[in-house]
Amino acid sequence: MSILLATDFEPNELADWRRMLEETLPDERFVTEHREAGIDIALVANPPPGALRDLPGLRLIQSMWAGVDKLLADTTVPPEVPLARMVDPAMSAAMAETALWAVLGLHRGYFDYARQQQAREWRVLPQRRADEVHVVVLGLGAMGAACARQLAALGYRVSGWATRAAAVDGVAAHTGEAALSTLLHEADIVLNLLPLTAATRGLFDSERFTGMKRSASLVNLARGAHVVEADLIAALDRGLLQRAVLDVFATEPLPAEHPLWAHPKVTVLPHAAAQTDLRSATRVAVDNVRALRAGRPVAHLVDRGKGY
Amino acid sequence: MSILLATDFEPNELADWRRMLEETLPDERFVTEHREAGIDIALVANPPPGALRDLPGLRLIQSMWAGVDKLLADTTVPPEVPLARMVDPAMSAAMAETALWAVLGLHRGYFDYARQQQAREWRVLPQRRADEVHVVVLGLGAMGAACARQLAALGYRVSGWATRAAAVDGVAAHTGEAALSTLLHEADIVLNLLPLTAATRGLFDSERFTGMKRSASLVNLARGAHVVEADLIAALDRGLLQRAVLDVFATEPLPAEHPLWAHPKVTVLPHAAAQTDLRSATRVAVDNVRALRAGRPVAHLVDRGKGY
Repeated sequence: MSILLATDFEPNELADWRRMLEETLPDERFVTEHREAGIDIALVANPPPGALRDLPGLRLIQSMWAGVDKLLADTTVPPEVPLARMVDPAMSAAMAETALWAVLGLHRGYFDYARQQQAREWRVLPQRRADEVHVVVLGLGAMGAACARQLAALGYRVSGWATRAAAVDGVAAHTGEAALSTLLHEADIVLNLLPLTAATRGLFDSERFTGMKRSASLVNLARGAHVVEADLIAALDRGLLQRAVLDVFATEPLPAEHPLWAHPKVTVLPHAAAQTDLRSATRVAVDNVRALRAGRPVAHLVDRGKGY
Repeated sequence: MSILLATDFEPNELADWRRMLEETLPDERFVTEHREAGIDIALVANPPPGALRDLPGLRLIQSMWAGVDKLLADTTVPPEVPLARMVDPAMSAAMAETALWAVLGLHRGYFDYARQQQAREWRVLPQRRADEVHVVVLGLGAMGAACARQLAALGYRVSGWATRAAAVDGVAAHTGEAALSTLLHEADIVLNLLPLTAATRGLFDSERFTGMKRSASLVNLARGAHVVEADLIAALDRGLLQRAVLDVFATEPLPAEHPLWAHPKVTVLPHAAAQTDLRSATRVAVDNVRALRAGRPVAHLVDRGKGY
């Protein structure tokens, strides 16, 4: 049997990765050509369209990325083959770092100080304690939970919300639309780490922004399609929202002419909040390959009905 | 007996603070006039020059700020009267927040991403794990120790250095000039939280910068006089150092024409890393007032020989 590597990696990156895989799994045969016979596992990272079509022996698709919304939207990906998400501890740690940095920046005014520096303005802003700042974390999967835990450890007042009930130490966790409205109404900082599904697409629109505090800020580290960008810009311009820190966008790379680049209340990151650490992610993928070969259960399978 | 309040507070702030003190210590008499009789304690925050002169009954000077270098340099402050520094847990927490934010920004490239945003440039930078980043914390007093602990908890490789031997959980602590040279040579990020003394004034000069990695960055949250600013600018310009995050300066407020404001490798904060939380600091000061009245030892006394 063979393992297909279907990615958009640069040749050098692909060669390094293949070497890493071959050293770890010396008995496996790795191929990059879809037409090779005997493919039963595919390791995928932004696979080219059609890369997984007509593979009758395929028994597992292992994503190397955390989000599977693109894979689920690709009609050439066989819907009956089990699909595993990447749940990588190194990626969760990286996401928590970005979340902490963004929350600290909003809480302590460092984004404002950056603008003051540009204007050569020396002005100290009022300082709140972390326990006076209510951070609402949307999404309590591996990454949301890691962020919530770190924020709680730093002393923030943290509430969590997820589509499925979830428990995180030291974090009040909620579910359901009523709780979501209440939490967004009370939040000082909203940190979005939800999966992108039919239910969460366009979640942040004019109506949501109207229901938030004028002093509140949004940190979106999940998917661009969670936010209606025109509504966000209008809300910032009308003073309904204080600031947005965005790592993800409807179109990526963010087009050079896009108004978000130069908006004074927007921080743009180039989808860099948490990159897959290929060393760490490969260990996670290898565990699933070994599980499949040994007839053990594969971890982190996607529920296609729910979309994550 | 009376307690003198000698500060540069605005009238409103002074009135609020006085009310807070009177509610907490209803049996004490608080005065703001130096000429009042019976003053035996002074609570000071940037006292006007001469404010503590000719007070024969003075038994304790309690600083409301953490740094006492200005008080020690003021020849009108009686040298024989015990002087207590402010060691405020809320201030240590605020300092650790700024330290985390600065270290995360340097480690994960957020300062670079801010410059990229200005240029509308979408480019993802290489991502290191926290344990690949060596942070050297100089100064392991209450604030340095709080920063070192938080950084270690986030997974950074943390080394500490102090003029006196100090122990912090999870942090290798060093002392002595040889250790300092070695640590600065190995550091990816140097976080300065030393007290300003004759021994630490001008610590960061051309020679130190030459001994650091070209990829290293300096975070100065202590005192401006720790850094020879002209040497720092030269080191940044010559590529001997990657970046500096500065909260403190030789002259504050930083003059509008100062080259640090617009230096592309410098982040300027307006001495805002950790403001005294007056509610929390007042509790600490009140504890010392009660200790003195009860004949118990006063906490956090300054060793004038050492300068902190």
